[in-house]
Formats: sequence, C-alpha cells, structure tokens
Amino acid sequence: MSNFDFNNNSHRRYNPLTKSWVLCSPHRTQRPWQGQQEGPDMEQRPQYDPKCYLCPGNQRASGESNPNYHDTFRFPNDFAAVKADQPELEANDDDLIKVEGVRGECHVICFSPRHDLTLAEMPVQDIRKVVDIWTDSYLEMKKKDFINHVQIFENKGAAMGCSNPHPHGQMWCTERIPEEPSKELLSLQDYKKKHNGKCLLCDYAQRELADPERKRTVFENDTFLVIVPFWATWPFEVMVLPKTHIGSLPDMDDKQKTDLADAVRRVTCRYDNLFKTSFPYSMGIHQKPLNGEYDFAHLHLHYYPPLLRSATVRKFLVGFEMLGEPQRDLTPEQAAARLRELSEVHYKSQQA
Amino acid sequence: MSNFDFNNNSHRRYNPLTKSWVLCSPHRTQRPWQGQQEGPDMEQRPQYDPKCYLCPGNQRASGESNPNYHDTFRFPNDFAAVKADQPELEANDDDLIKVEGVRGECHVICFSPRHDLTLAEMPVQDIRKVVDIWTDSYLEMKKKDFINHVQIFENKGAAMGCSNPHPHGQMWCTERIPEEPSKELLSLQDYKKKHNGKCLLCDYAQRELADPERKRTVFENDTFLVIVPFWATWPFEVMVLPKTHIGSLPDMDDKQKTDLADAVRRVTCRYDNLFKTSFPYSMGIHQKPLNGEYDFAHLHLHYYPPLLRSATVRKFLVGFEMLGEPQRDLTPEQAAARLRELSEVHYKSQQA
Ligand SMILES: O=P(O)(O)O[C@H]1O[C@H](CO)[C@@H](O)[C@H](O)[C@H]1O
Ligand SMILES: O=P(O)(O)O[C@H]1O[C@H](CO)[C@@H](O)[C@H](O)[C@H]1O
Repeated sequence: MSNFDFNNNSHRRYNPLTKSWVLCSPHRTQRPWQGQQEGPDMEQRPQYDPKCYLCPGNQRASGESNPNYHDTFRFPNDFAAVKADQPELEANDDDLIKVEGVRGECHVICFSPRHDLTLAEMPVQDIRKVVDIWTDSYLEMKKKDFINHVQIFENKGAAMGCSNPHPHGQMWCTERIPEEPSKELLSLQDYKKKHNGKCLLCDYAQRELADPERKRTVFENDTFLVIVPFWATWPFEVMVLPKTHIGSLPDMDDKQKTDLADAVRRVTCRYDNLFKTSFPYSMGIHQKPLNGEYDFAHLHLHYYPPLLRSATVRKFLVGFEMLGEPQRDLTPEQAAARLRELSEVHYKSQQA
Repeated sequence: MSNFDFNNNSHRRYNPLTKSWVLCSPHRTQRPWQGQQEGPDMEQRPQYDPKCYLCPGNQRASGESNPNYHDTFRFPNDFAAVKADQPELEANDDDLIKVEGVRGECHVICFSPRHDLTLAEMPVQDIRKVVDIWTDSYLEMKKKDFINHVQIFENKGAAMGCSNPHPHGQMWCTERIPEEPSKELLSLQDYKKKHNGKCLLCDYAQRELADPERKRTVFENDTFLVIVPFWATWPFEVMVLPKTHIGSLPDMDDKQKTDLADAVRRVTCRYDNLFKTSFPYSMGIHQKPLNGEYDFAHLHLHYYPPLLRSATVRKFLVGFEMLGEPQRDLTPEQAAARLRELSEVHYKSQQA
C-alpha cells in the first residue's frame, strides 16, 4: 500500500454493524484540554445506605419496600418509559409525520445488595447470578405477547446519567425493535444473504483471532473475545463477542454463562484500573428479538465509556460528531494496547 | 382515530431526514432527578480577557497572534482533526475492515471581538457579519479541489464540550461528505424520486405552516420557519428552515441573509430566557456539498441543546438511547409551546 500512516493520518472507518462511518484523527491526542472536568469518584460508600432506594429493605418511590435480597433483585421501574397498558394507535402512512404506539415494560435489576460494590469489584460467581437474572428475565418477557424486544443495559457513573451508585442496570422491553438493534439485525441479515449464509460477527471474530499481532484484542476466554472493534467510536469502547454463533443469553450453557460473567468482571476491572477511578460507561446487550425468525442474530455486549485521558477528562461527542460524524482521537489499536497491559486485580484491592 | 393520548402514551416518531425513530415518553417528565447537575453559568466575563486565545491581539497555541479584529475573525484550527497534506490511501474493498483516508481543513470562526458576548446577546447586524463569514468561507472552500463538504457548527457551553466561552464556532471541511449530511441527502433524494420532484423539507415546511394550531412553530420571519420538528430528539431541539427551496448560504440574497441572522438571534435569545442561563447547545448548518449534483439539498440549521428542566438538569442520551433508540420525555409540541411564549429581549438586558 501507500505510505499512509494510520497512527498519524486522518481516516474514517466503516462500522458494518450500523452501516455508518467514524472519523479517526490520531494526531489529535496532543490537544490540551481546558474544558469541563468530571468529578473524580473519591466517594467511600457504606455497604448499606438507609437513604438508597435500591438497598435491601428500603422503601421506593412507589411506597413499596425492597425485600431483604441476598443476590440480585428485579422490580418494575417506578418511572417507566413504556407501559403495558395503553390504547392502541393505528399505524399511519405518512412520509413526513409518521408515528407508532409503543407498549412495553421497564425493569430495574440490582446486581448486589451491597451498596458499595460495582461489577468491577464483584467475584465471578456473583456476576454469574446477574447473568442468570438477565437470562431468566429475557425468558419471562418471551411469554408476554406484546413484547418483542428486551434491551438490557447499565448506565454507570454520574457522567453517564446514572443517579444512584448502587450497582444496578435496567431492562426496557418493547413492542417494537428499537433503532440500534434493528439496524444491526438488518446488517447481519444482509451479510448472511451476500456471503452464502455466513454470520458477520462470527466472521469478524475469526478475523480478529487470525490477526498475528492481535492488535485489537484486549483478552479472551474459552467463549468470548473482548476487543476494541475496528470501528469503535468511544475512546475505550469494547465489544464482548462470542467466538461461535450464540443468538441470545438462554442459548448459552452453564460454562458459557460463567465465561460471560468472567468477561464482564475482567472488562470492568481493567476499566477501573485504567485511570484508577470507578470508570463510567453505558453497557448494553444485543441479542435475538423475542419473536420471529432471527437465526442471524449474534449475541454481543457493547461498552461505551466516555473517559478519554484521565478520571476527569472525557470525550465529548458534540458539534461535528452530532452534525457531521462521530470522531475519535486515539486509534482503536492504541486503546486496545492500553487496556491489554492493565491488571485484572482491582486497584482498590491492590492497595488493601 | 383511537383514544390514544399523545401527551400521556408512549409512542415513537419517525425522522424522515435520517430515516430513524425516536421514542417519546411524555408521562416521564414527572421523574425526580438525583443525578449529576451542570454548573450554572454565573460567570461575569470581561469584554477582553488577556488569557483568552481568541481575544483580539492575543497569542495562540501556534505562537501566532490574533489581529485586532473588529467584527469576525477566522483562523486555521491549531489542533485540526483533518489536514490538507497527507498521503493518499487506496480504497479497500472489504466488508469487515473498511477504511478511507480523509483530507481536509479545520477552521475556527470568532463571532465577535467581545469576550463577554454570545450570539444571544448580539444585535442582528453583528450576527449578519457572522452569516457573511460563513458564506464567504463556504465559497472559499469551493475553490479547493480536495474539499467536498463544509460542516459549520458551534459548540456552546461547557456541557457541550466547549472549552472557551469566547463566542466562536468551527468549520470542518472534508474530502468525504460526513455521515449525518450524507444520510439526509439520501433521504432528500429518495423523497424527490418518490414524490415527482418535490422536496422533503419544502413539503415539511408547508405542512407546519398549514397546521391551524401551529403546534410546533416557535416563530417565523419572511424567509425562515423556526420549529421543534415532529421527530426532535433533544428536549428543546429546533430546526431553522427556509420556507422556500434554498440550497446553500450563497444562494440567499441580502434580505434572506439578514433574516437568517434574525432567526439565529431570536432562537438563541429565547433559549437563554428559558432557564435564565447561557443555554448550552451544539448548532450545525446542513447545506449543499461543494461539488456534484445536489439540487435536492435544502439549507437548514439544527440546534441540539441538552438542558431539560433547569439550568442544571440536563437530558442524558445514554444507556437505552445509545443501545436502543433515542428517547425523549416532553413532547415536541410541549417544547414548542414553552419556547413560543418566551420573550425575545434577553433576560440580562431586561434586568439592566
Ligand atoms: O475543537 P474543540 O472545541 O476543542 O473540541 C470540541 O469540539 C469537537 C468538535 O465537535 C469535538 O470533537 C470535541 O470532543 C469537543 O471537545
Ligand atoms: O432511568 P434513569 O437511570 O433514571 O435515567 C437514565 O437512563 C435512561 C435510560 O438510558 C435515560 O433515558 C436517562 O436520560 C438517564 O438519566
């Protein structure tokens, strides 16, 4: 090829899952930062906080009290974005003003009774219980005929709009398949058609495994490959990708579920160790919709973390990113190298 | 229709410009907020700040000094995301690892020599000079054969990643048409084909003008309609839309350019008056690419402001929004009603 230098020259990378581009400007990492700083996470939290509405035994906004749960705990979101019970809206056929009704359910899932923990500090066997409640919840929703899609996610940290540090995630279950998974499913389907039945994400996993330098791999276990995808947008974005074709959480056997718990622990622990802070992110699980033929769906987790250079300096996806296209500074390969060299022992327990 | 209540029932609205959906959950505005608060803008700024690298006469990171400019001033960004001079990258044909080189130029445009002002507080005749430098810069870039697209934008406020309060915007000029305008152009082109040569945005402007309640109109002048689009994502998002078909800034006559300055002043002034704070936003201008046949392009400005309920409480587009689909609480019609009733005299000058 030419003398193009991927560590210095601007280029854009294509995201085949969403069929969109990301601008990469690697030389821009030298830019000084005089803008907004995030509050670093200095807080020492108690194991139990009497004012936390997620702690065992405490009362929630609805007036109900949490049970004295020992592992995980799920309850309906008191401020649900979608509800099961609302009138039908007839589909309208208008190219300018187009609207659909959306029924559904929103749930909150506590990962642990301990107010002071995060997934990064929890042992694999406890995270395995989180994988189990995710799996059971998915199966439970499958029984409801007005729900077609389960979006499991976690907002961690104030920088990601999280208003309670108690370890928890959410599950928004909807009648319609939301925009992002629906774009991805279309790409997976198109790829399958074009490539004689092959799976985009299986093929991509094989490509990363076949790379002699393993440039974008952070780590792997028997079931999962953890990589900074070639087309990553957020500075330290990673994808947790099964190496073989797994469609949804319930499609995994016992060992694979424990491997997922292992991958979650190792990603989040490395994240915390990167800037020695509780690392903010949004994480989400993409998998098979509940009804219909989606054999091309391939389970995976996206981690979208905003921090760029330290516990207090984040990447803003604004201006050009909103109006033009997403832009990143360090390359995915540089990000993977940074994450690869970090310890899988949490910095807090190292200090102890 | 049914007894579906758009002010209470969850629904999703289709954005025909980007061909994507937004979830609207109007009952969710009652949700209490215990999360991160933005720092309100209490700062009193001097007219000239000797430490500001954008003020007249001061030195920049490059070592160069700004002229003693009196109106507007443009200079090349010292930390440009794209550069004119880099090796060519041959196009690769790979469905998984796809990449393109991107040459270009990045510029910074100061709106005023006054460090203490923002567009919201500037008189129309001074904003008109900003419209003129935008127009001239677009025409200047048209002469460079390696630039096909000019993305003019403004990041205002620390919440939008802006690191210097001196009134300024940017212009990123690239070889490739970025993702967002390229999606929009495709939609405009498809609409034109499907609707016998008509323009999506001309038709949409007519639809809003024909609405007897003018539910989504904030205000208008002879040339521009200012609306909260039916498919708005951000709480108080607005679009500044020419009522007739105008492709780009240079296609406007003198009166139309002044009308654009008028629209910019009135939007930003209403924004500041909403929560009596310097209102953060990202603004961007979409218009015709520089080369090629784009007669279907229709000039418009997007304003994406994050504040939701007060000077300190913003909407976070995280979690479900990143992994599922954008979600909003108040309806576009409610947002338009709020913006409509505000004064066009800036709250600071009312106090004086
Ligand atoms: O160029 P600035 O103002 O330093 O930087 C700001 O705007 C850029 C373009 O929208 C973004 O890429 C940066 O993340 C943001 O902090
Ligand atoms: O439901 P929460 O945690 O109160 O709210 C958070 O997550 C939601 C789902 O990602 C977002 O819509 C909110 O903007 C965010 O603050």
